Amino acid sequence: MLVAPGGRLVREIGEFALIEQISRVVGAGRRDRLRIGIGDDGAVWRPPVGHELVITTDMLIEGVHFRLDWTDWEALGHKALAVNLSDVAAMGGRPRLAFVSIGLRGTERDQDVLKFYRGVRTLCERFRVAVAGGDTSRSPHGLVIAVTLVGDVPRDGRPLLTRGAARPGDVIGVTGPLGLAAAGLRVLERGLKTLDGSPAMAAAYHRPTPRVREGLLLRRCGVRAAMDLSDGLLGDLPKVCEESNVSAIVDTFRLPIPHAIRWAFPDWCELALRGGEDYELLFTASPPLFRRVRQAFQRAGLRPPVEIGTIVEAGGEGPVVKLRDLLGKVEVAAPGGYDHFGT
Amino acid sequence: MLVAPGGRLVREIGEFALIEQISRVVGAGRRDRLRIGIGDDGAVWRPPVGHELVITTDMLIEGVHFRLDWTDWEALGHKALAVNLSDVAAMGGRPRLAFVSIGLRGTERDQDVLKFYRGVRTLCERFRVAVAGGDTSRSPHGLVIAVTLVGDVPRDGRPLLTRGAARPGDVIGVTGPLGLAAAGLRVLERGLKTLDGSPAMAAAYHRPTPRVREGLLLRRCGVRAAMDLSDGLLGDLPKVCEESNVSAIVDTFRLPIPHAIRWAFPDWCELALRGGEDYELLFTASPPLFRRVRQAFQRAGLRPPVEIGTIVEAGGEGPVVKLRDLLGKVEVAAPGGYDHFGT
Repeated sequence: MLVAPGGRLVREIGEFALIEQISRVVGAGRRDRLRIGIGDDGAVWRPPVGHELVITTDMLIEGVHFRLDWTDWEALGHKALAVNLSDVAAMGGRPRLAFVSIGLRGTERDQDVLKFYRGVRTLCERFRVAVAGGDTSRSPHGLVIAVTLVGDVPRDGRPLLTRGAARPGDVIGVTGPLGLAAAGLRVLERGLKTLDGSPAMAAAYHRPTPRVREGLLLRRCGVRAAMDLSDGLLGDLPKVCEESNVSAIVDTFRLPIPHAIRWAFPDWCELALRGGEDYELLFTASPPLFRRVRQAFQRAGLRPPVEIGTIVEAGGEGPVVKLRDLLGKVEVAAPGGYDHFGT
Repeated sequence: MLVAPGGRLVREIGEFALIEQISRVVGAGRRDRLRIGIGDDGAVWRPPVGHELVITTDMLIEGVHFRLDWTDWEALGHKALAVNLSDVAAMGGRPRLAFVSIGLRGTERDQDVLKFYRGVRTLCERFRVAVAGGDTSRSPHGLVIAVTLVGDVPRDGRPLLTRGAARPGDVIGVTGPLGLAAAGLRVLERGLKTLDGSPAMAAAYHRPTPRVREGLLLRRCGVRAAMDLSDGLLGDLPKVCEESNVSAIVDTFRLPIPHAIRWAFPDWCELALRGGEDYELLFTASPPLFRRVRQAFQRAGLRPPVEIGTIVEAGGEGPVVKLRDLLGKVEVAAPGGYDHFGT
């Protein structure tokens, strides 16, 4: 097989040489409290005193979560980390350590694999996370990525952000625009390269920004209920309602939907409601607390969160999400979670 | 498609119902220090004060690490956990939390997936490990399993077990027989069901016992150098030599090779030297320390470790592993690490 410029095939250089190269890329980063990183049977880390740990793990599979013809390797590394950083952010934790495993066909070029790890490293550096370990393996039928992230939260009396703490009367907030990533996916699927705003949409899909600072600040302000939007608003908000035993009314006219999406796609509201992978934080807070949160975000130089609805008591039908339009018409929304095994 | 007895198809019941069933299987276990387990964006765990954490992760891929026609689902769950428990054991850590992710075609039966998690749970209960989270995903081209394990080690002044601490003059020890798992793999490959000892060989391959108690005791005795045997003695011992900058002389006549293997396979010595997946611990210790270790193992009711060779200074050729036979003849062994991308 011919090797294009840009490196040798992974199966030619072998597993151990590849690991060696990978650790040169990611091992040079932060090492706070990390006594042993890549290279032994496990990583050894000293957790800060008086903290609890937040640990989360995710799997990304070629053809299901990403397509190599739509993405580049560095963006893939970014995204694999981002979805996990987002989970730690959604609990109000500070991310610390990443473990990144990759299964490869063996026909990849080593330079591409290193680009993947460079994408990982860049995002890790931005959020001061050390890459502490991982695994490499052969995966004959396509790329598989598994990431585990360890974060911490000080035990300062403030609760963690959970899905079960929303209360009737709370305002529902989101930290940023909805539907951008779903629009980006559509841009890629349909090859809409010339569409106005398409680079921003594709970037939202490829390189989502995990809302780490926002999550830390929400918890510091006293917010208790949050999760990250990975499955779309109507996929994720029902989980909060279910866990908190409350219902939600979403004012569709308040959803922060970028104009480029409204302009380009007639079903823009569906994209914002059911499109996944925005990785913004969804949270609830009492109205005075919500005002304090907005002020705190402004002071910190962060985009203030947008109010999109209200939490109400669950009625006889149990926890549901209702949509309310400008005229005040209310209808129950069909839950729209993304089901990996759905047909 | 017809559904055989034993459950419905995963893609029919959907991701969320499956997660619900899985958490009923694994969530009922231990919860020490685990404040939030499966069900939120991340798990929340309070690490014990004055401890360091040992964290390790592994990926198992269908067709590479296992074949579904050779194993049953419960054994697969056992093995996925065992290989990670073994890594924590090899550092001298006490395993605490497991995160188990699984990628499924969707055509599996839910009862089989639950059997997998039952295998996970049984081994976790044996070593008092809580299953704290994981991820489920679709994986169209075959099963993928990713496990992350978190363990801890008290900061009591005793060092961790690492690959880089072997010293010239040390005795090389192993905690149990070599070659059994490789013989088991051969039994499965060749369908040798009637072979004498084949059930024990197959069991060693399918359900390896991670040497958790042994690892804890090695560290408590003051041992500093260890790793677990996953790639075979001639795959793993060179890593210790490399990291410690020493050479090793292995007395082949001392290797603890079960008689059933010697009897069944003419290349029994190769099976013991290069066969992987035994998951015994390999360690080095000064001769007096080695004697104390043997006594401590005996007092604890554990099988005493076997002396298989000596660590010597690395000569001009750098760190190498040499084999010595009964007559004292010494030859350099070709390193025999299992390379995932090797052809």
